[in-house]
Amino acid sequence: LRACFFSGRNTMQTLYVLLFDGFETLDAMGPVEMIGRIKGDYRVCCVSQAGKNVTSSQGVAVATISLCGMEKGGILLVPGGQRTRTLVADEAFLRDLKEAVGKAETMLCICTGAALLAKAGLLTGRRATTNKRAFAWVSAQKEGVYWQKSARWVVDGKFYTSSGVSAGIDMALGFVADKHGKEAAERLARETEYIWHANKEDDPFALA
Amino acid sequence: LRACFFSGRNTMQTLYVLLFDGFETLDAMGPVEMIGRIKGDYRVCCVSQAGKNVTSSQGVAVATISLCGMEKGGILLVPGGQRTRTLVADEAFLRDLKEAVGKAETMLCICTGAALLAKAGLLTGRRATTNKRAFAWVSAQKEGVYWQKSARWVVDGKFYTSSGVSAGIDMALGFVADKHGKEAAERLARETEYIWHANKEDDPFALA
Repeated sequence: LRACFFSGRNTMQTLYVLLFDGFETLDAMGPVEMIGRIKGDYRVCCVSQAGKNVTSSQGVAVATISLCGMEKGGILLVPGGQRTRTLVADEAFLRDLKEAVGKAETMLCICTGAALLAKAGLLTGRRATTNKRAFAWVSAQKEGVYWQKSARWVVDGKFYTSSGVSAGIDMALGFVADKHGKEAAERLARETEYIWHANKEDDPFALA
Repeated sequence: LRACFFSGRNTMQTLYVLLFDGFETLDAMGPVEMIGRIKGDYRVCCVSQAGKNVTSSQGVAVATISLCGMEKGGILLVPGGQRTRTLVADEAFLRDLKEAVGKAETMLCICTGAALLAKAGLLTGRRATTNKRAFAWVSAQKEGVYWQKSARWVVDGKFYTSSGVSAGIDMALGFVADKHGKEAAERLARETEYIWHANKEDDPFALA
């Protein structure tokens, strides 16, 4: 069982994908596609609290290793999904999440995953966004977060937060552009025949 | 281990996702997101030749059951990926693929997955498309296929074939529109905040 794909140079950075039962498939797999294609620089490692198989909301069972195995200095991706509705009340999960976020160099948070970060107090005093269809619920999780009603994605310090599901792909390319230049992101988009919505300020699903 | 998510009504149709080591993550997971969200009508079941865990080109290990377990009348999804370069020469795989396609009511084939279908003789006499960056290689696999140099996706009989990677998401919504009406597809796009490229004739990555 290879839950992680650890080959290549030691200078590679790990993209840790934090999964839980009921995660939204594309929230995680869109960014995994884009960042995981940069083979020389990144390796993908799916992690979960228990380090077992977890099943997405759409029925895909993914093998993971324990979140405890996460090393410092990686990228941490947190997807959303219906399951976040109960996870916001799971104190053990939020504690583990907080520790993992502390180790990460960069956070990529998609859709209602932002509710988990907010509830753990990690977005307090920061700008962030989330799925516009779940905006009221997410923004009610914690006071003191500057929730953006119009943004495809938001960057504040090491925290990237995106709008719903598909917006995570646009944000992942935005992260690549920030780190490796816009040409690198555009090359990925061409290779995957993806029509990149590259302007993070322009939100086609913004709340009025 | 739940490789398949079998709950709900017996009238549900199964989306069989045929995976192999080195499959391209988004080729499979984009359509899974869209079709798998229609919970009352579809359930997702990841299958492979050996029925073991398979690891995507980007390093995600997915649990599967054996392709032999596939029942008649489902939808079969075939992703692409670098691994197709060797699978086109794997006669046992092509034989199993041909049998599976025979059982399927609808075929959804993404990116270089079309090379596998073509090589198995399943696209002969049909219109089809593929990733425009791999067009020369794919179209060299078999004579007698009407390869389309400009199409986001193509429908011919029960065969849906899409352009590269991300185009599979647009095609999946196209399939939903064909089967359940355009409004159903547009609702899915809104829910996932996806900017749907709905016109299958308009190909931003077309060959000149």
